[in-house]
Amino acid sequence: MELRQPYLLFLGDVRDQLAAKVAHGLVHWRRDWCVGQMRLPGCGADTGVPDLSIEEAAAKGARTFVVAVANAGGVLAPSWIPHVVAAIEAGFDVASGLHVRLASVPEIAEAAAKHGAALHDVRHAERAFATGKGTVRSGRRLLTVGTDCSVGKKFTALALEAAMRRRGWQADFRATGQTGLLISGKGVAVDAVVADFIAGAAEWLSPDADPDHWDLVEGQGSLFHPSFSGVTLGLLHGSQPDAFVVCHEPTRRAMRGVEAPIPAIAEVIDMTVRLGRIVNPAVRCVGIAVNTEKLGEGQALTYLDRLAGEHGLPAVDPIRFGVEPVIDRVAAEFPAVSPRSST
Amino acid sequence: MELRQPYLLFLGDVRDQLAAKVAHGLVHWRRDWCVGQMRLPGCGADTGVPDLSIEEAAAKGARTFVVAVANAGGVLAPSWIPHVVAAIEAGFDVASGLHVRLASVPEIAEAAAKHGAALHDVRHAERAFATGKGTVRSGRRLLTVGTDCSVGKKFTALALEAAMRRRGWQADFRATGQTGLLISGKGVAVDAVVADFIAGAAEWLSPDADPDHWDLVEGQGSLFHPSFSGVTLGLLHGSQPDAFVVCHEPTRRAMRGVEAPIPAIAEVIDMTVRLGRIVNPAVRCVGIAVNTEKLGEGQALTYLDRLAGEHGLPAVDPIRFGVEPVIDRVAAEFPAVSPRSST
Repeated sequence: MELRQPYLLFLGDVRDQLAAKVAHGLVHWRRDWCVGQMRLPGCGADTGVPDLSIEEAAAKGARTFVVAVANAGGVLAPSWIPHVVAAIEAGFDVASGLHVRLASVPEIAEAAAKHGAALHDVRHAERAFATGKGTVRSGRRLLTVGTDCSVGKKFTALALEAAMRRRGWQADFRATGQTGLLISGKGVAVDAVVADFIAGAAEWLSPDADPDHWDLVEGQGSLFHPSFSGVTLGLLHGSQPDAFVVCHEPTRRAMRGVEAPIPAIAEVIDMTVRLGRIVNPAVRCVGIAVNTEKLGEGQALTYLDRLAGEHGLPAVDPIRFGVEPVIDRVAAEFPAVSPRSST
Repeated sequence: MELRQPYLLFLGDVRDQLAAKVAHGLVHWRRDWCVGQMRLPGCGADTGVPDLSIEEAAAKGARTFVVAVANAGGVLAPSWIPHVVAAIEAGFDVASGLHVRLASVPEIAEAAAKHGAALHDVRHAERAFATGKGTVRSGRRLLTVGTDCSVGKKFTALALEAAMRRRGWQADFRATGQTGLLISGKGVAVDAVVADFIAGAAEWLSPDADPDHWDLVEGQGSLFHPSFSGVTLGLLHGSQPDAFVVCHEPTRRAMRGVEAPIPAIAEVIDMTVRLGRIVNPAVRCVGIAVNTEKLGEGQALTYLDRLAGEHGLPAVDPIRFGVEPVIDRVAAEFPAVSPRSST
């Protein structure tokens, strides 16, 4: 799956900012790709980019009309369909993170066929994959793992990509979920792949690269989450990381959506090393990324200090304090093969 | 997926016994369900059951025409198609373990529609599943796990089912792969399920049951296999076993199809307990099942004795010596809630 940039972000008439989370992520991480947003009367979300009509966005060079919202059930509201069709008629491709497939709406399928538009359903895998091979690939890989689902694995990988690029390193975020995929413009929704091919899809996602190149692979789920652990382990084995960062939310008391307890960070590190070394004997943890949103600033700093001491690792909140200490650790543990262009 | 019994086993014109492995498994484990076999000129396989025509099998009550063979590529040979169609016209359902979907062959799809026949492609999942919940279910479950793929996990689970039933216990083999599914008549090919739903499919497969009822869940892959570990872990978490048996092939030097080393049996036990206790804190290993085919009988007995001593567990070869010591161990570790009908 490979999306054409830049995007026009369609927010429809969603009620609040939360429903436009995908659009906010796009503007945060890929401001340059977002020429504007399109909102219908009653829309309660605003990403802060210019409000544009389809024609105005087309004139500014936008190539893909992104349905960048979520609603209950992941359906396309009937009132949105004419706008999707109008975008296709104006020459746009369409991308959607909804559950429903764009081509399952007859008007959209017909318009796309007539105008040669690509329809990207980022929740669904577009292609077939081989089974994983476990063969060592060149280049370096960092995977974000978690004590649970929804603890900042995508945000952390994107923050690491941005920080590495600021230092002049070659670094690419590798998307494994629908929002990440829209932000990256490519990738694979690994949770939508047929089970036998999870590792194979992850291998495809981070191919051979230059020795100093870093893939920042967006993790999914948790080895300790009873619903999604299979995806997590397949992704670990397929991405064969050299390094990983553990993501954590300190106030959560049970795994998301189930009653299982949250594992200790040390347990996640140990298990990730034990299972990860099957495909990369030198795999190691290079940091802990915590979402400290629910803690006061002083409390957050104290907590991160304590974690860092306990684990002998940099502990950061990527949103609040950035990820520089993790990048320093990576630089120290993985000296560049070729001289780096800047530090 | 639920198949109607009994079966007519179609062997086509496959060259040798190995290509009819599925048919041999059916005759071995479900002799009563196999009214006969149907072979075309040139067939080099023979399962030992009566050779019957479609009409003869129908007269004996056969309900499902089972394409019980494998060939390179998993395709349906063009010369087999008229026989499948003739079976449908005679009132049979059709089941196939081939990769190709039966309904993708127009003549077969048309005949099935006309005669109301069910077409079962056991390599493909027939239904959608919910995500796993991790909720504790009633009844008992035993999962076979392995140091690798193809080390006897299906055979061991079936042997345990047979041995438990001989003792009068309530026990059901739960199929997770295509051959197992034909043998069981139902189940789910977990490797064909969308990744997010592996655990959910396994939960569906072994629902709430009587407190003394045992589900013998057919394991898949290995936690240590870089291609298929995701399926293995999802299946472990979804089946929430009380007990597991480790299956092993002692002469193998690398994981099947890849270069990864075979893990030690102790490592598989430890990892299965550590990951399995998330959904069942009391999970424990109750035996080791070894395929000793490549060892002499004395050598095999010595090897099993050594394993039993090293691990403090019954070590058996289910094919050569049976699984009784494992059943004894299960009986000792899991006393029946209600008095058992026999011992």
